[in-house]
Parts: sequence; structure tokens; C-alpha cells
Amino acid sequence: MSPNSTGRGRTAEASIDDVVSYADAGVDIDAATGAVRDFSAAVTATHGPRVLSDVGSFGGLFDITDLGRHPVLVASADGVGTKVELAARYGRHRGVGHDLVNHCVNDILVQGARPLFFLDYVATASLDPAVIVEVVSGVAEACAAVGCAVLGGEVAEMPGVYVEGTLDVAGTIVGVVERDAVLPRHRDIAVGDVVVALPSASPHTNGYSLIRRVLDRIDLTDELLEWLLTPHRCYLRDVEAWWSAGVEPSALAHITGGGLIDNVPRVLPDDLAVRIDTSSWTVPDGFATLVEAAGIDEPEAHRTFNMGVGLVAVVSSGQAAAAIEAVEGSWVIGGVVPRDSTGVVFVTAS
Amino acid sequence: MSPNSTGRGRTAEASIDDVVSYADAGVDIDAATGAVRDFSAAVTATHGPRVLSDVGSFGGLFDITDLGRHPVLVASADGVGTKVELAARYGRHRGVGHDLVNHCVNDILVQGARPLFFLDYVATASLDPAVIVEVVSGVAEACAAVGCAVLGGEVAEMPGVYVEGTLDVAGTIVGVVERDAVLPRHRDIAVGDVVVALPSASPHTNGYSLIRRVLDRIDLTDELLEWLLTPHRCYLRDVEAWWSAGVEPSALAHITGGGLIDNVPRVLPDDLAVRIDTSSWTVPDGFATLVEAAGIDEPEAHRTFNMGVGLVAVVSSGQAAAAIEAVEGSWVIGGVVPRDSTGVVFVTAS
Repeated sequence: MSPNSTGRGRTAEASIDDVVSYADAGVDIDAATGAVRDFSAAVTATHGPRVLSDVGSFGGLFDITDLGRHPVLVASADGVGTKVELAARYGRHRGVGHDLVNHCVNDILVQGARPLFFLDYVATASLDPAVIVEVVSGVAEACAAVGCAVLGGEVAEMPGVYVEGTLDVAGTIVGVVERDAVLPRHRDIAVGDVVVALPSASPHTNGYSLIRRVLDRIDLTDELLEWLLTPHRCYLRDVEAWWSAGVEPSALAHITGGGLIDNVPRVLPDDLAVRIDTSSWTVPDGFATLVEAAGIDEPEAHRTFNMGVGLVAVVSSGQAAAAIEAVEGSWVIGGVVPRDSTGVVFVTAS
Repeated sequence: MSPNSTGRGRTAEASIDDVVSYADAGVDIDAATGAVRDFSAAVTATHGPRVLSDVGSFGGLFDITDLGRHPVLVASADGVGTKVELAARYGRHRGVGHDLVNHCVNDILVQGARPLFFLDYVATASLDPAVIVEVVSGVAEACAAVGCAVLGGEVAEMPGVYVEGTLDVAGTIVGVVERDAVLPRHRDIAVGDVVVALPSASPHTNGYSLIRRVLDRIDLTDELLEWLLTPHRCYLRDVEAWWSAGVEPSALAHITGGGLIDNVPRVLPDDLAVRIDTSSWTVPDGFATLVEAAGIDEPEAHRTFNMGVGLVAVVSSGQAAAAIEAVEGSWVIGGVVPRDSTGVVFVTAS
């Protein structure tokens, strides 16, 4: 394996400094090489016809001819925050790869983009090949599920920078959207439009600094732990189902950190707000447990956690029924109203 | 600032979990917001007409219409390895940004690509706004110098994952090359071609795990420290000068981890090797100091460090003089020979 490759020929920091005498300076070359061998098949399996480079080249090559009439790339870089520490504590590294990819896919999806390719960075204090293989295999699985190529990546072993036993992951996604299909389309959003919600699978990747802090104050059942470690849900297929059904949301909001309160107003014109009916869905029990243990009130809870809502879409009132019909589990969570002071108004309609 | 933004509206992990009660869970929101405000002008200054998104959008938008006849994207993800720890120890965070960007620019340059845009990820145990501003300002400066847009980024505060007082950086670059200009062009490389070298500025970003290990065994003068912290040199303008002068290298090799020994063979056909004349340049004194302190022999030294050579180009013998003429500091370091056993043969011609 060539050193320092950042194309498909991923190489660890270990082999960046690939000399025999190097083992005693804190980097383990064989471990890195073994890990690369073990995940390379999963990575290569994500490569479609647009990926031109061979394993071992310096950078990944992606053919962009005929991507559309007026193609615009949408790029986003992200980590998964301190959920990575909780996952590491329970040896659940594969889910971290899914969290990373799905978060990124959703972030560009709300601008109307479909994913093209992904690059990841995994760093740790001392390289455990099994852990690296799990993380990158998770990345590859999540990418394969949405037709996204894993175009490159880097594994770094950095003793002295990372706390022993921990790791961090970061990723960059690049997708494409036609210029006139970029979301949100403010001109198409009006009072009376309907807000449709899709459920989250867990806290996704937000609120975990607080979650870790209150973990010793709650009864951490297997069920609760499983839920806390459930990866970020990917909404690409759901939104594609809307598009296929002729439903054209004028705005999509990914409910990440800041919850409904901060994320929904980001995609609205300044003079509009949304009215959210809190009786329209049942907040998963896990959130109630966390909120109680943290001692935060309801507005704070809605800024810390997604509270069961992973993505919302603004559709015309005429398309609301078709939207609900097209995606199982979706529901009408509220509507667009004139903006008074805040961008989100919580009401209980029932 | 909107939470969790990964477009130009960069936000810290701190504000991903942006609730008042959150301050005591180890994340400092005001610090993050202040840092974003302080570096945003530098980031925005890198944006050319192809950047469509506004600060605060979820993902960065980059228009790719009319990028060429048959454009191919080249992407690479990288960190700067443990040099980041040394830089942090001496408060030299701005250089880290230059290291990160320049390494990435060079990695895609050797495939013939010019940079389009860059996204970075900066993570630390506890967020010091001044440090974050230095790192991201360094990224923005280095990007501005090569006409590359900083399209997005993420700042994460992750207590418990990073060692207190340290940080890590990672970046992803995306560039473009015409399909028929992708390097290397193996069909154009032949015995008798000339290998031209460009000097490195320092160890760049390789060998720092070993350097940190031997640091207490050497006389660390101000001059030596300055050299160790000198950022990775960017070779885009040099290679562009060759292209402008009509010099068309058939291969470029970025001398990173693995040194001349590992990196040059990566760009050669299997049946060819290079003969490197070690008397053609003077190895900077710093390398001799490091090599002696580490107790490694010359072959190991040439796999650990760049030994003063940052990039090599393969040119036809007829273009060698023009190549040397076009780029100050370049020199003929060797030539292409039939491959026997190894890809690099060191000789002393004088």
C-alpha cells in the first residue's frame, strides 16, 4: 500500500511514516495495512461508472460530464459529535459510520441535492484495526444504500492528541442539484402551506454531550441504550418517494442540533413562521427520560433534541394528502403562518 | 448563527447543542459564536462567482457549469498528522491551516487538477476561540492564495475525546482536471526522461511522530523549531509556471510520507524506475540533525522524510532545460531508467 494516499488507496498515518524503526514511535504499520485490506472491498463496492481512479491513486477521480443542464454541487462537512464516544464505549463503531454518512446526506438533501461521493477521516490515539474496519464498513454500507461513492478517506493514528480508547470521525459529502431545483424556494412558500414531518430514529447525532452527562442519573436499560445508539436516519428515499409521487416540497429542514426551534426558521422567508401541533405525534419515551434527568423545560428540550421529528417538509395544502400517502410514517405536524416574533409557535390542537 | 450548519455558516458542536443549560455540560456556545464571527470575513473572501450559497445555508453551493469539455473532479481528504500537536505546543495554529490546505492542493495537483473548493473540520477538547480563528484563518489564507473557495467547515468541541490542550484538523479538497489531462500519463514516460525536483520548505507534514519522539534528544534552537513548524509548501504556482512555459510533465509525485522511495514509484509504469543523484542537492541541516537523533540509516531517512525534496516531475529530455528555467529553485535530480528490482535507485554522480 502506498503511503499517504487519500484516494481509494486509503492509508493510515501509520504508514505515512512507514519505516521499520517507526513502530516504537507510536504508530503501528501492520495494523493500518490490515485494516485497509479488510475494508477495501466494501469501499470499492460503492463505486459506480463515474469513479475513474484505481485504488492507490493520490486522489479519487469522479467524472461529472452530463450531470445535468445546470448542475450545482452541494458540499457539507460534518462529524457526529460526542455520540462517537458513547458508541466507542459500547463497541458500536459500525453505527458511527452510518451516523456520519446519513447526517451528511440529509444536510445536502434539504438543499435539494442527491449524493455523488463521500470522503471520510477517522483518527484515534492507537489504531485498532477491527475498530477502523467497523467504522469504514459502516460508512461504505450507508453510502451504498444511497448510491454514493466512497471516493477517499484517511485513517490517522495520533497518540497524544486523542484520549486513549476514543476516536473521532469526520466526513465530507458532495452532491448535485439542478440550479433551479435548489431548496428552499422562498417564492413558493405561503401562509396556509402544510408542514409534513418524518420521524427520527433516535436522538440522531445531537444532544449527546448532555446525554453523556446525565447517563449516570437514569436507568440505562438495554432498550434505552439501543435507542441512544441507533444511527441517524437517512431521508433520501423518503424525499425521492415524494418527488416520484409529484410532491414538490418548497422547503425541507433537517432537524439536527437546535431542534425544530432553530432548524425550521432557517428555511423560511423572514415574514413566515410555522405553527407546530405538539399533539400530532407522540414523543418517544427516551426523550422524556432524558429531559427529566437533565431538568430542562419543554422549549429547551425542543432546542436540544429532535423530540422524534427528523425532517420536516413544507408542501402546498393541495399536496399534503399525496405527501402523507407517499411516505409511510409521515404526518401533518403543522402549517405555515404569518411570523409574529418567533419562527416556530408550538400549540396543542387537541 | 444557525446550529449545525455545514455550509459557510460554520457552527461549533457547541451550538449544535445550543441550549442555555448546556454550558455546564462542557460546551461553550458564546466562544463558538465569537470564533465564527471572527473568521467569517476571511472565509467569505475566498468565494468567487461559482459559490452560490449564503452564509448560514446547510451546505455550500458550487456552480460547475462550463468547467471544461470533459471535466473530472479530483477529491482528497487529509489531516496533518501529529505536526498539529507540535504546532499547538508552540501556539502556531495559523500554520496548521496552511499545512492542511497545501498538502491537499499538492495531492490533487499530481493528478493534474486545480483546486475548486475546500471544506475543513477542526475539533478540540475545549474550544478556545482564538485558536479556532487562527486555524480557520490559516485555511482561508492558503485557499485564497490558490483561488480555492472555503465552501464549508465544522468546528467541534468534544471533551473526553481529545486530550486537553490539543486539537485535530482534517480537510477535503475538490478540484478539477480535463479527462485527457489526468496525470500520470504512463504512455508518455520513457527511459531517458528527466526527473526535475522542487525543494521542500520543511519536513512538511511527515515524520512528526518520530520528530516529537526525538525532540528531547536534540538541541532545539529557535532556527530548528522555526523550520520544523514551517508549513507544507504549495506547488500549484510552480506547476502552473511549467504549463505556461509549455512544459508538460508526464508525471508529478508529491513527496509525502514514504519519501522519494515510496512516492515516486507510485506514478511510474511498472517497468520503469528513477535514478536519483543524491549529489544534486544539499539536504537541509535539520534533516541531518533529526536522522542522527533518531539513529536511522539513509534508506530509512529517505522513507521517513522528504529530505529537502517536495515534488518531482518527469519531463522529456527536450523539456528539461525549459522546466529548470521556468521555476526558480528547481533542479535536475535524476532520470528515468529501466526497472530492475526497486523503483528508486540512489546514486552519487559526483
